[in-house]
Amino acid sequence: MYRRNFFEYIASDFYNAMSIISLITDFGTEDEYAGIMKGVIYTVNPSARIVDITHNLEPQGIIQAAYVIASSYHYFPPGTVHIIVVDPGVGSNRAIIALEKNDHVFLAPDNGVLTLILKDDHIGAVIRVENSDFFLNPVSRTFHGRDIFAPVGAHISKGLNIKKLGPPLSRDKIKQIDIPVPKILSKYAVMGNIISIDRFGNLITNISLHDIENILKTSSANKIEIIAGKTRISGLSMNYASVRPQQQLAVIGSRGYLEIAVNRGNAKYILGAQKGESVKVRTVKPE
Amino acid sequence: MYRRNFFEYIASDFYNAMSIISLITDFGTEDEYAGIMKGVIYTVNPSARIVDITHNLEPQGIIQAAYVIASSYHYFPPGTVHIIVVDPGVGSNRAIIALEKNDHVFLAPDNGVLTLILKDDHIGAVIRVENSDFFLNPVSRTFHGRDIFAPVGAHISKGLNIKKLGPPLSRDKIKQIDIPVPKILSKYAVMGNIISIDRFGNLITNISLHDIENILKTSSANKIEIIAGKTRISGLSMNYASVRPQQQLAVIGSRGYLEIAVNRGNAKYILGAQKGESVKVRTVKPE
Amino acid sequence: MYRRNFFEYIASDFYNAMSIISLITDFGTEDEYAGIMKGVIYTVNPSARIVDITHNLEPQGIIQAAYVIASSYHYFPPGTVHIIVVDPGVGSNRAIIALEKNDHVFLAPDNGVLTLILKDDHIGAVIRVENSDFFLNPVSRTFHGRDIFAPVGAHISKGLNIKKLGPPLSRDKIKQIDIPVPKILSKYAVMGNIISIDRFGNLITNISLHDIENILKTSSANKIEIIAGKTRISGLSMNYASVRPQQQLAVIGSRGYLEIAVNRGNAKYILGAQKGESVKVRTVKPE
Repeated sequence: MYRRNFFEYIASDFYNAMSIISLITDFGTEDEYAGIMKGVIYTVNPSARIVDITHNLEPQGIIQAAYVIASSYHYFPPGTVHIIVVDPGVGSNRAIIALEKNDHVFLAPDNGVLTLILKDDHIGAVIRVENSDFFLNPVSRTFHGRDIFAPVGAHISKGLNIKKLGPPLSRDKIKQIDIPVPKILSKYAVMGNIISIDRFGNLITNISLHDIENILKTSSANKIEIIAGKTRISGLSMNYASVRPQQQLAVIGSRGYLEIAVNRGNAKYILGAQKGESVKVRTVKPE
Repeated sequence: MYRRNFFEYIASDFYNAMSIISLITDFGTEDEYAGIMKGVIYTVNPSARIVDITHNLEPQGIIQAAYVIASSYHYFPPGTVHIIVVDPGVGSNRAIIALEKNDHVFLAPDNGVLTLILKDDHIGAVIRVENSDFFLNPVSRTFHGRDIFAPVGAHISKGLNIKKLGPPLSRDKIKQIDIPVPKILSKYAVMGNIISIDRFGNLITNISLHDIENILKTSSANKIEIIAGKTRISGLSMNYASVRPQQQLAVIGSRGYLEIAVNRGNAKYILGAQKGESVKVRTVKPE
Repeated sequence: MYRRNFFEYIASDFYNAMSIISLITDFGTEDEYAGIMKGVIYTVNPSARIVDITHNLEPQGIIQAAYVIASSYHYFPPGTVHIIVVDPGVGSNRAIIALEKNDHVFLAPDNGVLTLILKDDHIGAVIRVENSDFFLNPVSRTFHGRDIFAPVGAHISKGLNIKKLGPPLSRDKIKQIDIPVPKILSKYAVMGNIISIDRFGNLITNISLHDIENILKTSSANKIEIIAGKTRISGLSMNYASVRPQQQLAVIGSRGYLEIAVNRGNAKYILGAQKGESVKVRTVKPE
């Protein structure tokens, strides 16, 4: 009898506690801030697996954080706790939210970073995090990543029900931010924006494959043209290498959105593009 | 009988070996140096948990390393091994030190990086690391991070008593560096320096809350003014968001020291500040 | 009976599954790409240990990747899976290779990154990775790191025989790139190149200790001189600290190759050196 329980204890403790904690912050990796959060996490849950999604968001980059978490979380196993600390309001009366969706838990300040996560119907419990039993003591006014997010996230990763963290919060009360969405210009054209530029200089827009399919559906044309500043690109390529080196192309990128790229080159520099610039997609009649 | 031992073996090996190793280096993350250290650590202790505190110290940044380790280590669980490799003297006759304090172990070159760690009375064993049984073989002249610090740290994380690493070293013999400390200008004023600037542009000084309380205690005034170059700030704020965006403020930061910041802005750029510049705090009479 | 099996199950599953996955990419750490790969890896193998060797290769830096993996892999434990994603041809018909060597497994696009790994005689199985049972579904055209490399690497780390991934590939068919090698100028001199410059500004050449021993062997001289642009350095130093601060020196670095460095300074800036520049070593007669 004893042995069986002990067995189960080892096995269950070991496997259950092995959940993943992902981190998205604007702390950078020059300073000790992200490392300290990990120290706190391991103090609470020595079996956690911590994944840095990024610490290099631009400071106070709430929109960027909203995109990064939305395009990342579903590649993590169920049970993952995602901690997002982009928090210019730290220490003020902004709330901290714990939210369940599709077996993932999100822990973030209530400043709009969860806007895209809220954009569908699988939202479970939403809690306002207030129970200081799970915080470091004392809590500083300037580093809640260390004092609240890290220990609370670690407790959740050990199996704590988020309902123990504070009162429920109505989903409608969560702060949302305006995320630029493409405009339908006509049945044949849609206008979006460059919403981020990655390390390769690829220009990532907010125009989805779905948006492009829509204008193709309503048009007799079956080709598209992509226009960004003085750049005109004809049609979508299957991959970066499908044009000659240093030549521009458009692809549906790994996030599912239209990207403008240069094969083995940097579209940002070669095309002189900036974040926020508009990008138009329109159908063209075959000649 | 056999089974019981086997049980215990799994459990103890698993739980004991799960200790944390933190890394502070100036290796950067462009090159393979930090990754190779981790390969060596896992070869010795496959159950280690490795936390990067930072690899982006300025090259040979001994003072910066001294601050980073002092403000980080106590957020890690007891038993953590902290490896600090900022080591311009690598391969020379500088010693390598293993030092115990409050159930943490520090492994570092004897060049002053442990100066702040030595600043209180809980120092345990101090060892000069010389026992090459725990080194890679051969030991290079230029990369002791890989050849000595990584394998020795991994052995300690598996439970090796640091006394097996070499002869004891008198605490007084450890090299210390001059860390700039604030000067008491009068009963009403203290003068310190900007000792680091973080990714957000926050100006972190060496003036502690304690220093400020001291001048308030001896003064009839109950307000302070902070002066840095042409910048004058009245009083301490509770958090960054307690002034309007782009406005300057002073707070006690997460390290426990006075910081000058700009809400949702970069104090370094906006105030034109440099590391090393002096910062004065003085009491002011209420008008 | 049952218990014994269960025991063994826990123990074997736990210890076997604990293998290491190393990552070398040009994804940077600004974007979520590397973090997403880790999410996918942990979804397949929750017990994996992931080590970032570097994500900061220059974009499409195939030669640099070839050096980094060759100088890193042997510091990792046997059984490590090394994933290298520097892949400008992603989505084209370039193959993906899984290759065994000395109990390590390498997973990389067939674009030359494994050139230096192929340079000796311990190559085991070589497989063309084609079995989509181990891929994410669907596979995108632009992010095989996420859709193929991460899940395949994770399955290998759980013990999957690489022969299940696709047909064998002849070693001769693997794409190799020209890696610059030193030229023997005479019995007394060898000419190489600066092949990388690390974060410290150290100039790392492709001239090995072996090359230098060769010219010393055939010469009556027993001293060497190193010439790079206008810089002349007499003899090899034992370590960086063996000359005065800010003075130039030459050492055999941690990769086993000749490096030109400046003690506590940056040789790249001080000597005005560039990657690719030639470096000559010749014997000199004692005067």
